[in-house]
Amino acid sequence: MYSAGDVRVEQRADPTIIEPTDAIVRLVATCICGSDLWPYRGLEPADHQVMGHEYVGIIEEIGADVKNIKVGDFVVGSFVISDNTCEICRSGYQSKCVNAAFVSVAIGTQSDKARIPYADGTLVPTPGQPDEDLIPSLLAASDVLGTGWFAAVAAEAGPGKTVAVVGDGAVGLMAVLAAKQLGADRIIAMSRHPDRQQLALFYGATDIVVERGDEGVAKIKELTNGLGAHSVIEAVGTQESTMQAIRATRPGGHMGFVGVSHDVAIPGPELFFSEIHLLGGPAPVRRFLPDLIELIWDRKIDPGRVFDLTLPLEKAAAGYAAMDERRATKVLLRL
Amino acid sequence: MYSAGDVRVEQRADPTIIEPTDAIVRLVATCICGSDLWPYRGLEPADHQVMGHEYVGIIEEIGADVKNIKVGDFVVGSFVISDNTCEICRSGYQSKCVNAAFVSVAIGTQSDKARIPYADGTLVPTPGQPDEDLIPSLLAASDVLGTGWFAAVAAEAGPGKTVAVVGDGAVGLMAVLAAKQLGADRIIAMSRHPDRQQLALFYGATDIVVERGDEGVAKIKELTNGLGAHSVIEAVGTQESTMQAIRATRPGGHMGFVGVSHDVAIPGPELFFSEIHLLGGPAPVRRFLPDLIELIWDRKIDPGRVFDLTLPLEKAAAGYAAMDERRATKVLLRL
Repeated sequence: MYSAGDVRVEQRADPTIIEPTDAIVRLVATCICGSDLWPYRGLEPADHQVMGHEYVGIIEEIGADVKNIKVGDFVVGSFVISDNTCEICRSGYQSKCVNAAFVSVAIGTQSDKARIPYADGTLVPTPGQPDEDLIPSLLAASDVLGTGWFAAVAAEAGPGKTVAVVGDGAVGLMAVLAAKQLGADRIIAMSRHPDRQQLALFYGATDIVVERGDEGVAKIKELTNGLGAHSVIEAVGTQESTMQAIRATRPGGHMGFVGVSHDVAIPGPELFFSEIHLLGGPAPVRRFLPDLIELIWDRKIDPGRVFDLTLPLEKAAAGYAAMDERRATKVLLRL
Repeated sequence: MYSAGDVRVEQRADPTIIEPTDAIVRLVATCICGSDLWPYRGLEPADHQVMGHEYVGIIEEIGADVKNIKVGDFVVGSFVISDNTCEICRSGYQSKCVNAAFVSVAIGTQSDKARIPYADGTLVPTPGQPDEDLIPSLLAASDVLGTGWFAAVAAEAGPGKTVAVVGDGAVGLMAVLAAKQLGADRIIAMSRHPDRQQLALFYGATDIVVERGDEGVAKIKELTNGLGAHSVIEAVGTQESTMQAIRATRPGGHMGFVGVSHDVAIPGPELFFSEIHLLGGPAPVRRFLPDLIELIWDRKIDPGRVFDLTLPLEKAAAGYAAMDERRATKVLLRL
């Protein structure tokens, strides 16, 4: 991204092994994330920035210390580099690994090859070479599915629970899928876009609420005996969506927030008197990847449907424009 | 409290049973809370306001529907009225009961008698008439002990955990006691007052940190291998103490906040990237009262030491002054 709105695909030098824990991945597919739109729209700085942090591909080369992955393996990687051995990783928060680095900043996987540091800690091989139709779903696991899943876990979605999802982008839709898999009784998707409502229903939503802000909160309370939802997922990252999520959560309930927070300030007194659990942040996708790959491999979930436009990598600029103009929910880029 | 700084003890009409779920309690002891200092200092409005929300006493009269308490019982009550039967109460969040009311606002227990609504849901009888020396500890259970306990539970203090406590007032000290009882490995009290440091050590603190703000955070990190504490308790309620607590918590760790939040705004992006669990608010003391009474009755804990000044109720004004001027940590008022 040369600057806001100016995305170009250019030839760069091939990556090479630098550290003995590195691996070189030849990418098979990558994609454009909702978070890539922040710099595209000029809301975050962009100055000749490499882009992309979601990726699946085949291992082309490994460093001397890589033990769990071999050349030729098909792998899915997390959008945050992690060693998966430090105390924070072992507690399940690999996105805050003491050696964490964001793939988007450090590497940029909207490319045909990528050097992945801490390959053993970041990449997970699939059981074999995947069928072609599984590739979108495996790619989704790299971020949007893993992030939606973390949000649902953070919100403690599960049996007996009513879950409300604020945000109908790819992550919100994946959170619906996750809540369903985790056994939630009732899943309320907050969406006013007919196509996304349909996808939410496909993924397991039981109710659709079109209202937003305080009207949306009132509707959630109306559906929950005046109390609010047990579990609320925030998948946008604005002040309005954050407050909508806090206010839609019942006392003692859980809010999981994964929309990258921009210009948000949470009023302390309101949070105090709402008496809810909060957990959010960059999802520790690595924690969930083995289970998510298994669910996809066994065709128990179909997260790949979240991609509604596929383009060759060379057409990345057209993909950004389609997402920016909301003509696509999520764009897959093929190599 | 006629106005800020002007506390008077005056004769009022005796309370009477209004609802069949009410009880009249003849108070044996009450006390002054740190939160009573906010209006005393003019930081919250006060206009001929009844005061007090912590209380133990003997049941003098009960309404027709009160089943679990009888005349003559010695009882400890929560600082929030709760029916203890609604869905929110049953989930353990009695302080957010659908029929919740703050005793401080609705009743005011710095008095010799009080009408307690939802007596079955709010009051817990002791196993018998307590020995005189147990009264301060039972009174502490009504708020500061119950609040410190909730903070420690919210912060998930327990075996294998390092706990840091921000705030060395009565609640912070009770949180130290709770963390110890819950089995925490290491308990760091953040305090610069020698007498409170001593009490923190008595209650189970293993380390004292005198630094505050970002220096305090740096010290906590130094003591925790650079990661931050697993469990952090916030027991002040200011912007500085809130940020100190957030920053002292390791990724994936838990922060329990019980200092009544005043003029606090939590920056969304910082909270997002800190990736910590949060839970706080007015403590659901009623959830913990049966266990706390048992621990006190069996003399396994001695929370009553937190009272360092005892005065007759008539001298309430002197008690406020002593706490305001930090000559006392917590003042007990005897009837």
